[in-house]
Amino acid sequence: ASTLALGDEEQREEKGLTETGSAGGQSDGPDKKAVISYWGVSPAKLIKEDGTEWKWKSFRPWEAYEPDLSIDLKKHHVPRNFMDKFAYWTVKALRFPTDVFFQRRYGCRAMMLETVAAVPGMVGGMLLHCKSLRRFEHSGGWIKALLEEAENERMHLMTFMEVAKPRWYERALVMTVQGVFFNAYFLAYLISPKLSHRIVGYLEEEAIHSYTEFLKELDKGTIENVKAPAIAIDYWRLPADSTLRDVVMVVRADEAHHRDVNHYASDIHVQGHELKESAAPLGYH
Amino acid sequence: ASTLALGDEEQREEKGLTETGSAGGQSDGPDKKAVISYWGVSPAKLIKEDGTEWKWKSFRPWEAYEPDLSIDLKKHHVPRNFMDKFAYWTVKALRFPTDVFFQRRYGCRAMMLETVAAVPGMVGGMLLHCKSLRRFEHSGGWIKALLEEAENERMHLMTFMEVAKPRWYERALVMTVQGVFFNAYFLAYLISPKLSHRIVGYLEEEAIHSYTEFLKELDKGTIENVKAPAIAIDYWRLPADSTLRDVVMVVRADEAHHRDVNHYASDIHVQGHELKESAAPLGYH
Ligand SMILES: [Fe+2]
Ligand SMILES: [Fe+2]
Ligand SMILES: [Fe+2]
Ligand SMILES: [Fe+2]
Repeated sequence: ASTLALGDEEQREEKGLTETGSAGGQSDGPDKKAVISYWGVSPAKLIKEDGTEWKWKSFRPWEAYEPDLSIDLKKHHVPRNFMDKFAYWTVKALRFPTDVFFQRRYGCRAMMLETVAAVPGMVGGMLLHCKSLRRFEHSGGWIKALLEEAENERMHLMTFMEVAKPRWYERALVMTVQGVFFNAYFLAYLISPKLSHRIVGYLEEEAIHSYTEFLKELDKGTIENVKAPAIAIDYWRLPADSTLRDVVMVVRADEAHHRDVNHYASDIHVQGHELKESAAPLGYH
Repeated sequence: ASTLALGDEEQREEKGLTETGSAGGQSDGPDKKAVISYWGVSPAKLIKEDGTEWKWKSFRPWEAYEPDLSIDLKKHHVPRNFMDKFAYWTVKALRFPTDVFFQRRYGCRAMMLETVAAVPGMVGGMLLHCKSLRRFEHSGGWIKALLEEAENERMHLMTFMEVAKPRWYERALVMTVQGVFFNAYFLAYLISPKLSHRIVGYLEEEAIHSYTEFLKELDKGTIENVKAPAIAIDYWRLPADSTLRDVVMVVRADEAHHRDVNHYASDIHVQGHELKESAAPLGYH
């Protein structure tokens, strides 16, 4: 506990959290046997507001958030020039095989697509990080904004895998798709960040559409509206009795925020600027 | 301002910060002309405790921290097996040309080495992120811990470039070194994360040594103890009258924390575990 920075301790106190001893068994990983180490840098145990132990290793209570459900879900970037149309039709073309493959299995579809959705933010953030180092330049916050997006998408995956377990051939498919998509997006981002962000903007528009369809199936009863996974309740600060429907609502709101960030990033490039010139929307959920 | 997540607003209030209107010109980027965008997601203006405007786009007041200067600077992982010795002598071998090239120009040396130091955390974090997605597995917080390290090293660079401006041949050198080192570390991490973390652990031990030499030169007066850059004062919450010496002290403490995290990560692997099994030391500065 003595190894924690003051900043963290302050935040913890402000959030009404207390810490006790060193880390024990937590729930997003086995933690079977303790690792014996000279470096003993185990994080402090965190206690939730209700007195129970904080179960997650990958995010802390103050990184959870209440999503802004009032965001406009209908906003759309009308394709204007060739680049826009190319991005738009690329995404529409990718949607066709996806629809055929998953049909109405929206839980499964969400889980699989989130493994892909978490790639662009990581690639973009990493490339901007290297650029900032290489050029001795500030980032304008865009490294953090894109990495936050990647982590947010990864949390969508951590949530959906609680309600839909991947089958062996789906695991195999994810490996292949990640290998191809990571490299493709990496190259695309090196060549044209403005096209890359536009494509992600349109992908997010499609994601909003898919989650809307997911909600319809839940309302019709064709997909069972199960209890929300524990991780979702803690990550989005949802009420304890929340259901899958509430989770899909907040995930959809997240996608709308990603849509805004990526279309905005593309707009900055289109207007002849670099991202670092315009402050990035940090913590925009 | 309405686009900010509640979580952020709460934290902001708790830190005694207020927000006014939308973003204007800030200081770690030019922000010359505003980008006109349908997506209007500019972050809110932040005001510091002293009433002045928050100048940084890439980090927010609550991400600043007071470093733990009490950390043991002498801790050392005694090379035990072949892997340890290989890691140790690799680092010692890399040190020789570095010493010849920079000699006693420690400001310049620090600036140049930080461009390299910010690579391993990004590569490791990115690879663990992709692995988490591919395997539908939790990360144990290690993605975030390694990305935090990368960002911390980048902030070291943003600080030192205020006191030592890179010359054109140094810029050219950085491009080459990054190209080689990024790919070498990427491959090394794919093949053996335990060796990679051990190497970084030893690099950090050397960094502590270099910063100690830097402090000696400052005390002798061979390097002028100039005023601390504004960004350093805000990032490490230093008193307004801090000097370069204070900055080197806190940077050295950061390196000692990175040393611990990386040797610990290597130890986890050596003991036959995966990183995700042991909670990562988040916010360990
Ligand atoms: Fe998502
Ligand atoms: Fe998304
Ligand atoms: Fe550093
Ligand atoms: Fe370091």
